[in-house]
Amino acid sequence: MNAPAAIKIAAFDSPLEALAKLLAHELAQTEIEISSHMVSAVGLIPDVAHHLVDAGGKRLRPLLTLAAAKICGKVSPAAIKLSAAVEFIHSATLLHDDVVDGSGMRRGLRTANLIWGDKASVLVGDFLFARAFNMMVATGSLRILDILAATSSTIAEGEVLQLASASRGDIGRETYNKIISAKTAALFAAAAQSGAICAGASDEYVAAFCEYGQELGMAFQLSDDALDYGGLTQELGKSVGDDFREGKPTLPMIIAIERASDAEYGFWQMVLGRKHEEEDLQTAMQYIRGCGAIEATLQEATARANCAKQALNVLPNSEIKDCLIELADFVVNRVS
Amino acid sequence: MNAPAAIKIAAFDSPLEALAKLLAHELAQTEIEISSHMVSAVGLIPDVAHHLVDAGGKRLRPLLTLAAAKICGKVSPAAIKLSAAVEFIHSATLLHDDVVDGSGMRRGLRTANLIWGDKASVLVGDFLFARAFNMMVATGSLRILDILAATSSTIAEGEVLQLASASRGDIGRETYNKIISAKTAALFAAAAQSGAICAGASDEYVAAFCEYGQELGMAFQLSDDALDYGGLTQELGKSVGDDFREGKPTLPMIIAIERASDAEYGFWQMVLGRKHEEEDLQTAMQYIRGCGAIEATLQEATARANCAKQALNVLPNSEIKDCLIELADFVVNRVS
Repeated sequence: MNAPAAIKIAAFDSPLEALAKLLAHELAQTEIEISSHMVSAVGLIPDVAHHLVDAGGKRLRPLLTLAAAKICGKVSPAAIKLSAAVEFIHSATLLHDDVVDGSGMRRGLRTANLIWGDKASVLVGDFLFARAFNMMVATGSLRILDILAATSSTIAEGEVLQLASASRGDIGRETYNKIISAKTAALFAAAAQSGAICAGASDEYVAAFCEYGQELGMAFQLSDDALDYGGLTQELGKSVGDDFREGKPTLPMIIAIERASDAEYGFWQMVLGRKHEEEDLQTAMQYIRGCGAIEATLQEATARANCAKQALNVLPNSEIKDCLIELADFVVNRVS
Repeated sequence: MNAPAAIKIAAFDSPLEALAKLLAHELAQTEIEISSHMVSAVGLIPDVAHHLVDAGGKRLRPLLTLAAAKICGKVSPAAIKLSAAVEFIHSATLLHDDVVDGSGMRRGLRTANLIWGDKASVLVGDFLFARAFNMMVATGSLRILDILAATSSTIAEGEVLQLASASRGDIGRETYNKIISAKTAALFAAAAQSGAICAGASDEYVAAFCEYGQELGMAFQLSDDALDYGGLTQELGKSVGDDFREGKPTLPMIIAIERASDAEYGFWQMVLGRKHEEEDLQTAMQYIRGCGAIEATLQEATARANCAKQALNVLPNSEIKDCLIELADFVVNRVS
């Protein structure tokens, strides 16, 4: 019997680290696939791509693909390619997001647009996105290509909807849910679902992973949006209040507006139409924290995490399944 | 017998217009495909997309796809989808190009980034690119997906190489050829080649269309770069000298540097490293025009056009083939 040390889940590991250990062999292959597809004779491409892809990424989405494939049978070479492609799509959207948001810090590092400029970020993002499709074509599965092409459209639609909603603030929960479902949860769902499809899973299992990914993605983004007002800059690896500065209406603000007194409502009406100043942020934080909007957002995230866990009920028990269950709680309770 | 009026090639038609008439029925289906895929519940997407895709586009690339398919047998529904997808890829790159170049005018209209801002242009470009893949997946051909995914990577690489070369100027002919081959000719080649593949053409015909597209694309870009220094703003639909202003080294400038006197060389050394001023442009134009660099660039374009025509030799004669032959001369001799 092989030493269990390598796959033992240490008490202090996060479920994400535990998952990475259980899938260490497969994840190593994914990393090779990622590196080999960042190669280009145009030096600026690997420079920008490595900066983003190497630095601090938790490989959450590729791990979903690998975990689903493993649970459903086996992690084929196609699943490895796919997991790398999913990370490339994610990285491409991050590069473009940082340009659109004018962000200067991500994962505790300066953003690519700050170092190499917006132009390089736009074009290298395009390159990574195109390369993702190269890799997906190499899987030879039209069904998976169909899912991921549709997901890519959906992500872009979500981003445009968010842009169109910026500085409006009074978008309401329905539009907010549409935005985060499209810009975040769709790729989680596609990543998990495609892993199952790669392993030849039944429709029931494929649907289970799709729902798990979708709900996990919602929980993840809700928690992210709560952290933006409730976290600490040092732990976040980016500045607290960035969503407010960028005029991005998220659930904590939406709830604070729902619960606003007349005086508070006047403040929101005043700031929503204009460029947000640092002193506005202090007032906004006070109102958002004061009315319990962060807790309410995290409750919503918890509800989504519970749905994610429930979706896994149909699957046989395994260590990886346990990790996925814990992961759902973890994305809600993380500090960064 | 149906009235021949609709397909008659009037003496004053450009070969592109003649091609559009010969393929009017198919092109109409392509237009329907294009319109139906710009639909989105997020209103900003069709606004930006229609502005670009409807306005003044000559549908050159989709026509290559349709023409190749028609010559090789028939224009299937897959070829129609593909021709629309090719136009979407082209449109996505235009949106991103205009952001990267800071352009304010295209086809005689204000650019999308000027009207809706860089953010919208980046994100709607992403949307069009993802939608292009949706359409390509719908063709069901992995071979075509492979070609167009690789082409998309190549385009992005070409754009990044151009960005990395900006303000260097002394890039030489080899790098210049690499840039225009990647950013322009690759999509022409893929468009023509894929049309032939869709129609089930022989390898010989597929290769002929690939070469035709490649050489036509080179001729097109060379002529474009000559026009940038030699054309008239009114006819171009954009400003003369934009390449110089953006620090984009193209063949006319490369030739002018090759042919420069000592004094002229001093000027080029001085301007290449810095932001280009309007008075520098006047001097640059004088040197470029004075040394015959525009004619030399157009000669290069003519040589490429001749290669394009030669590539078609293996094909049976037809009206469409005649149009493609005339098109090669036309892209060199056009004024806009």
